[in-house]
Amino acid sequence: MNLNDLPTPTLILDRQRVRANTDEMRARIHGHGVALRPHAKTAKSVDVARMAAGDKGNALAVSTLREADYFLSQGFTDLVCAVLLEKDKLDVAATLADRGAELKIITDNPAVAGAISSHAGAHRVLIEIDCGEHRTGVAADSPDLTELAAAVERSGRSRILGVLTHAGHSYATRTPDAVAAVAEAERVAAVTAGHKLRDAGFETPIISVGSTPTATHGVTFDGVTEVRPGVYVFQDMFQAGIGSCSTDALALSVLASVIASHRDRGTVMLDAGGLALSKDRSTAGSKFDAGFGQIADLSGQPFPGLRVNGVHQEHGEVLVEDPELFATLAVGTKVRIFPNHACMTAAAYEVYNVVDGGVEVVDQWMRCNGW
Amino acid sequence: MNLNDLPTPTLILDRQRVRANTDEMRARIHGHGVALRPHAKTAKSVDVARMAAGDKGNALAVSTLREADYFLSQGFTDLVCAVLLEKDKLDVAATLADRGAELKIITDNPAVAGAISSHAGAHRVLIEIDCGEHRTGVAADSPDLTELAAAVERSGRSRILGVLTHAGHSYATRTPDAVAAVAEAERVAAVTAGHKLRDAGFETPIISVGSTPTATHGVTFDGVTEVRPGVYVFQDMFQAGIGSCSTDALALSVLASVIASHRDRGTVMLDAGGLALSKDRSTAGSKFDAGFGQIADLSGQPFPGLRVNGVHQEHGEVLVEDPELFATLAVGTKVRIFPNHACMTAAAYEVYNVVDGGVEVVDQWMRCNGW
Repeated sequence: MNLNDLPTPTLILDRQRVRANTDEMRARIHGHGVALRPHAKTAKSVDVARMAAGDKGNALAVSTLREADYFLSQGFTDLVCAVLLEKDKLDVAATLADRGAELKIITDNPAVAGAISSHAGAHRVLIEIDCGEHRTGVAADSPDLTELAAAVERSGRSRILGVLTHAGHSYATRTPDAVAAVAEAERVAAVTAGHKLRDAGFETPIISVGSTPTATHGVTFDGVTEVRPGVYVFQDMFQAGIGSCSTDALALSVLASVIASHRDRGTVMLDAGGLALSKDRSTAGSKFDAGFGQIADLSGQPFPGLRVNGVHQEHGEVLVEDPELFATLAVGTKVRIFPNHACMTAAAYEVYNVVDGGVEVVDQWMRCNGW
Repeated sequence: MNLNDLPTPTLILDRQRVRANTDEMRARIHGHGVALRPHAKTAKSVDVARMAAGDKGNALAVSTLREADYFLSQGFTDLVCAVLLEKDKLDVAATLADRGAELKIITDNPAVAGAISSHAGAHRVLIEIDCGEHRTGVAADSPDLTELAAAVERSGRSRILGVLTHAGHSYATRTPDAVAAVAEAERVAAVTAGHKLRDAGFETPIISVGSTPTATHGVTFDGVTEVRPGVYVFQDMFQAGIGSCSTDALALSVLASVIASHRDRGTVMLDAGGLALSKDRSTAGSKFDAGFGQIADLSGQPFPGLRVNGVHQEHGEVLVEDPELFATLAVGTKVRIFPNHACMTAAAYEVYNVVDGGVEVVDQWMRCNGW
């Protein structure tokens, strides 16, 4: 089957590019002498996870317990849930552990730390550290750190295994040097917090950091035990814009058809709108603004400057000035759209149509969506 | 089961409010002596469609052929697909007709009109009219109108049944009078185009208009045969903002848990982020800006001015200044979030947890997602 045969809108994944992205990141992180724990939240696919983890890889990060359940059922047992859980989910976490998952959960507050300790399950716990994003986590120099660790271990069932941090503020950077500075802050926060816990008598086999930009541009990972980038498996227009990759690395696209063309209005309409692309506008206001997605031809070759300018639920509006381009985008033409944010866009689909650098569909891979 | 027992994030639907919204709209449109064709793209649920269509109702609008397939399998046979199709989908449309659907498809361009005529199936076709939004459709006074109709009927198999238009630009209005003016432009465009087709010898039993704002504030529907509002079944913060409803009408919300609370940063973090709420920011820059959603307590009572200020994939960040409110939103607390745009938010879920004005879960209703 060829891309031209697929009903639109649908999701296209270039396996060749996923392989290049995942091989490159694994080589880079292993080159630093550190373990890679790919964050599976972007692809939510066992096929992608296997490529990212490598032949003997068994370690993943996940963003939901549904993902943990799914990847465990596919044989991945070394899992970190990198989003704070509320205490009602401890039962599910314990069930996953009973099924063989070495599941690590995280906490940054006394209420959940206390609930973990009181819970019947024996949980493996990391303390979440704030390394400057100020989203979640406690500061590395906060007295809360050791208090939380003590609260987790109070009943003697659950135990602390280290710390985890995420430099989400790396997304606000625009140069490799700026990313490297954030990466160093991320590393220092995690390592400092780890030392504090060790000094207070806790074991810290896991010092976990990571985001795609900091994993890409970090200079040293001394003292860190694992790195957890996520979106690098697919990359996207935002990551290309901030310098995490070139546009040649973009593995994910949405296949769409031209369903209307109005020369007098200077518009072409695609059958991929807000639901098919997501309403992510993370590139808005930047020099690399891609609207709601960069448009490319069927082979994945971008039309320079051509983007989805507006979306309705099922319509993507494209402003086209050049008459020749207008003729190229006749009604019925199929195009590919590289999204701003791969994690958001992929979530609207259950299946990846896999290509291998070309336009032949060589496989279909499933996703694990929802909560 | 009670809302407090549900794992978060999850989708909550207040059946009592859906009933009030759907009864009110049906009474209003029927009061004008016109048929209501609810647009099923918002709820994508047969349970909601039955409430919207009423006891003997059999007519729906859909935005995808997957919806058409789903609603046909649930007994709805009078269907309008209100989004332009590309010609490769004509086979599917014909299959639906073979299964008993009186499916009406739309066109606004010669390529598809010609393909419809050449296709082996006997299609029922409406010409899409542009009534001022300039998204899709031909102008009511365009010579294209009768040419398209003639092209559709050329082979003698498919036939024209009338016209369809959608005043999406009603979303840019901010007063009932302004909406009423757009509604009148919508009506006049559809009726004018219908007359032109009739004068040219085509049958036009269907003169179809509709959007939630124009269906709500339109003064007259003379000459129109049916109205197709969609989001009114749930309403949302955007519709409340532009005056389509009060916030008491909001039937859809996302149930979320407080997973972190940092008094020093003035932030509370919810486990509903960009995937759970969507990144729709249609209220941005307006007086009724609701961030990524208005926060309410478990019973649905809004906290005035409290909104989701920022989202990450699985985190919703809330800025809280008031110390009392901060204490109310302790870690583990469950809240409800009324979204900006119900169609976008609901699409992330497969199931509605149904309440009936209270906090008891009385039913679960399925959605039909994807393409």
